[in-house]
Amino acid sequence: MKLFWAPNSRAMRALWMLEEIGQPYERILIDIRNGAQDRPDYRAINPLGKVPAIDDDGVIVAESGAVIAYLGDRYPAANLAPKIGDRTRGPYLKWLFFTACIEGAILEKFKKLDVPKSTAGWGSYALVVEALDQALQKGPWLLGDHFTGADVVIGSDLWFGCDLFKIIEKRPSFAAYIERCLARPALQRAMAIDKAASEAAASKS
Amino acid sequence: MKLFWAPNSRAMRALWMLEEIGQPYERILIDIRNGAQDRPDYRAINPLGKVPAIDDDGVIVAESGAVIAYLGDRYPAANLAPKIGDRTRGPYLKWLFFTACIEGAILEKFKKLDVPKSTAGWGSYALVVEALDQALQKGPWLLGDHFTGADVVIGSDLWFGCDLFKIIEKRPSFAAYIERCLARPALQRAMAIDKAASEAAASKS
Repeated sequence: MKLFWAPNSRAMRALWMLEEIGQPYERILIDIRNGAQDRPDYRAINPLGKVPAIDDDGVIVAESGAVIAYLGDRYPAANLAPKIGDRTRGPYLKWLFFTACIEGAILEKFKKLDVPKSTAGWGSYALVVEALDQALQKGPWLLGDHFTGADVVIGSDLWFGCDLFKIIEKRPSFAAYIERCLARPALQRAMAIDKAASEAAASKS
Repeated sequence: MKLFWAPNSRAMRALWMLEEIGQPYERILIDIRNGAQDRPDYRAINPLGKVPAIDDDGVIVAESGAVIAYLGDRYPAANLAPKIGDRTRGPYLKWLFFTACIEGAILEKFKKLDVPKSTAGWGSYALVVEALDQALQKGPWLLGDHFTGADVVIGSDLWFGCDLFKIIEKRPSFAAYIERCLARPALQRAMAIDKAASEAAASKS
C-alpha cells in the first residue's frame, strides 16, 4: 500500500486513516509547493493533480472520500467501516459523501456565494452546520459509540474548517468532537509525520 | 425500499439506479416546488432538505452519491457495483466521489469563481473536463465493458451539465457517452416517470 501525500493538505485524512488501520504502508511525498503534482508521472496517478491518492498493488484510488471508503473495506480487521448489510452502513456512506456538502458550505461562506438552496448540492452553509450540530449532539462519534472512517472524514473537515481556516463557526458540539478526534493516538502520529515533513521542507528552502 | 424524489432534480440518478436494479420500490414524491422538502417530516429524513433519499426498512440514506453506493452493494445480483476485493472497486469508488469535482467545476464556470487549484477540491474546471475526456476515450463505460453505478452518477452529471444546464462543453467523448446512457431502457423508464410527474404537477397548478 502506497500513499501519495503532502503535508498541510487534504491528504491528512488519508494519513490519519492509515495510522488508524495500523498496517504497513509506504508514504510517497508529492512536493505540491514545487509543482510535483502536475508532472506527468503524478498526473498519471491523479489527472487532477491533487493529493491524496493510494496505490494498492497497482489499483489506484484518488479522491479523499473514495480513499477512506476503499481503505475501510480493504482492512476489515481495523473495524473502521460497517460491513455491507449492517444497519449503520447507510449512514456511514452518507457521512463519507457529506464531505462535499462541507466543502460547498465552506466555499459559500468564504466566497460569499449566492446560490439558491435548490441549486446548491449542499443546500446552504446554515443547513450544513445545523445538520452537523444535530448529528454530533449524541456522540461520541457520528455512528454512536464506534469510531469509523466517517469520523476521519468529517472530523478532519471540522478541524480544518473551524480551527485551521476558521471559516466554520465552532459550535460547542464541534469543539468537543474535534477534541475527541485530536486525542486519538493515530491522529497524533499523523500530525507528527506531517509536522516533520513540513519542517524538513522549510529547512531546505 | 422507498425513494424520496422529485422530478427535474438530482433525484433522477437514484430513480435511474433503481430502474437499473429492477427490484420493487416505492416512490414518495416530495413536492420541492412547494416547500415539502423543508417540512419537519422530511427534514427528519434529510436535514438538508434535499432529494434524493432512500429508506431501506428504516435505514435512511441521503446524499445522491451515497444512495448509489448503497444501492449498488445492496442488490449484488444487479451487478452494478464491483465487489470488495475486485480490482475495479477502487476506480468505481473514485468515480462515485468524482461527482463532487464535477459540481465544483460547474460552480466555478457558472459563478466565474476564482479559486486557486491548490484550494479547490476539484482542481479546476479545465482539469475536471480533461480527466473526464481522458477516462471516456476508451469506453463504452467508465470501468470498460461493464456498466456500473459510477456511470449512473457521472452519466447524469454530464447529461445535466452538457445538455440541460449547458455549462460543460460537450466534447465528442461526452456526446457519445451521453448517447449511450440515454439508450439504456432503465434511464428511458426513469425519464418517463419524471415526465409524467412533471406534467401532473403542471396540470394542477
